Amino acid sequence: MQPIKSPAFFLGREEKGLISFGSGTPDLPPPKEVFKVLPHYHAFKYGLVQGQVNLRTDLSKEHPGSNFNDFVITNGASEALDLSIRYIAQQGGKKILIARPYFFAYPELIELAGMKPVFTDLVDGYIDLADFAQKLEECDGAIINSPGNPSGTVQSHKTMREIEKLSKDLDKWIISDEVYKDIIYVKDNYQLKGNKIIRVDSFSKTYDMTGYRIGYIYSKNKDVISNAVQMKSATSLNTSILSQQMAHAATKVHKKYVKDHIKIWKKRRDYMYEGLQKLGLETWKPDGAFYILAKMKNPYKVMMDLYYKHKVVVFNGEWFGAPDKIRFSYALDIPEIEEGLKRLKRYLRK
Amino acid sequence: MQPIKSPAFFLGREEKGLISFGSGTPDLPPPKEVFKVLPHYHAFKYGLVQGQVNLRTDLSKEHPGSNFNDFVITNGASEALDLSIRYIAQQGGKKILIARPYFFAYPELIELAGMKPVFTDLVDGYIDLADFAQKLEECDGAIINSPGNPSGTVQSHKTMREIEKLSKDLDKWIISDEVYKDIIYVKDNYQLKGNKIIRVDSFSKTYDMTGYRIGYIYSKNKDVISNAVQMKSATSLNTSILSQQMAHAATKVHKKYVKDHIKIWKKRRDYMYEGLQKLGLETWKPDGAFYILAKMKNPYKVMMDLYYKHKVVVFNGEWFGAPDKIRFSYALDIPEIEEGLKRLKRYLRK
Repeated sequence: MQPIKSPAFFLGREEKGLISFGSGTPDLPPPKEVFKVLPHYHAFKYGLVQGQVNLRTDLSKEHPGSNFNDFVITNGASEALDLSIRYIAQQGGKKILIARPYFFAYPELIELAGMKPVFTDLVDGYIDLADFAQKLEECDGAIINSPGNPSGTVQSHKTMREIEKLSKDLDKWIISDEVYKDIIYVKDNYQLKGNKIIRVDSFSKTYDMTGYRIGYIYSKNKDVISNAVQMKSATSLNTSILSQQMAHAATKVHKKYVKDHIKIWKKRRDYMYEGLQKLGLETWKPDGAFYILAKMKNPYKVMMDLYYKHKVVVFNGEWFGAPDKIRFSYALDIPEIEEGLKRLKRYLRK
Repeated sequence: MQPIKSPAFFLGREEKGLISFGSGTPDLPPPKEVFKVLPHYHAFKYGLVQGQVNLRTDLSKEHPGSNFNDFVITNGASEALDLSIRYIAQQGGKKILIARPYFFAYPELIELAGMKPVFTDLVDGYIDLADFAQKLEECDGAIINSPGNPSGTVQSHKTMREIEKLSKDLDKWIISDEVYKDIIYVKDNYQLKGNKIIRVDSFSKTYDMTGYRIGYIYSKNKDVISNAVQMKSATSLNTSILSQQMAHAATKVHKKYVKDHIKIWKKRRDYMYEGLQKLGLETWKPDGAFYILAKMKNPYKVMMDLYYKHKVVVFNGEWFGAPDKIRFSYALDIPEIEEGLKRLKRYLRK
């Protein structure tokens, strides 16, 4: 049995008979409009490092008060996060606050940029504002992720407004990772505003285009944008021009596509949540995204056993700062979820 | 007149009547096989962070002694450079040696990774081995770029073998940036081997696919590869799956495509070089790539004048560590080169 050290182990792996509650790869196809771009596409030269004007114009229409200069198109939200974090480090930043459990890449991105992560623990999936505020004082900024991966929770408007105020009053950067903002079941998301707010978003989850790697930075802070473009001119140049054209096509069906899909996600959420409840597992009920954390001793062993003996992928909670949990993604259809839960039941009975 | 601060200013700019000796964007189209992939392409999920197996297998066939585990597919050579440089910094590296004039992004990538660039000056376009060896001792590694941008020169086999030996004897990293290895007019390129050799290459110049951003790291050092994949899992995840499939199609016509194109590049090289000689400009004769540096006082002013008054793009040598030169790219057809040289003549006469 090969050891499994990170989520990357499973990315792109296709094995017959495997049920994957692993990576956050939607199984639903992108809008068909996305593929209509392809047959007659012939461009091949460098694009703008900041991103194609048509795509940035689309985004400005979705974000009231913005214009196309406020966006940088990136290789997925991952590069948007990397550039944002490197930007804070370039400004002399030393410490970044993150809520735990966290998206696995945050601590590594912070450390790669030469900074240190500081942690505030979620309470039942929600930010503890007193602790957050106190720790933010000693940091240069924080990363917020609502709806959260792996938490599945959506922070309240009250919390988000308080964080917005803290950013202003304490003059701290807030990177708001909103890649799941179009997958929310119970309330709407509050979108942060302010001079030190850097919003990070993606086409991957909204339009099921993970493989094409289209994300973006949105900020009203001109220094953030110009520095991100400057860095990206050295670190990767333009994002794939064809991926951007496909993303441009996707925006044309934004509202209808999102509305149709949320129904599917909600059904899966309900099925998955109830299934885990029946197995007696302790979880938070997801408000958004498509993840559930379940309490579990020895999550590494459980992950290894489930993968190698039961052909079920779950993720080790340790990767997300939750050493007493495993993470389930429910980005797969109901019959597969059903089969996966059956195998899980068999394993847990032993 | 808007000031022009970096090459990124011109990337993706299309203006009628403009003659661009600016960016290194080939005007020649990619192999037609590349576009045949598109009409029936339907994949959309995450790919392997290390890169698709078919493309890495193609590369292993082009590099004797390699296998598909020795490659990481990246967002252009830019990301390959960024990951390689960040890797050296993660190993505790502090200083990286580069030959001046240099590719504009090197110093910035080194500084972004928290290290310092150290410079050795090219002599008539070639590496001064004594100076190189002496300065390498105080550094953790060096970046080599042959054929060179902006120098246009190809380092001799003797020099390359000596650098290979220095890497081994002094235990120093060598990043060999080989993105122009398929565009050489006068000799062949020597390819470095060794445990601390990191080779960086790209599909952009070989196959005229700049907009699609396919580059790669090739190293026999397993730690380099595993760390690059680990970092990329946080900083950008897989490179666009569709760009990779297009690159895979390109490799099928590698030899013929390169052979046909080298004839075109050589004609342009000769035309450009002779044209600049006739204008009395002092240059090095290019051995490879598609750039010529010409001696020029006040290169910033010359660039501004030529762009805003004569609709000709040239690049400020200061961006490449050559404050007494301007850079011409001749990645455009002969009639355009002719027109550009006419405008240049008009400007120089004043």
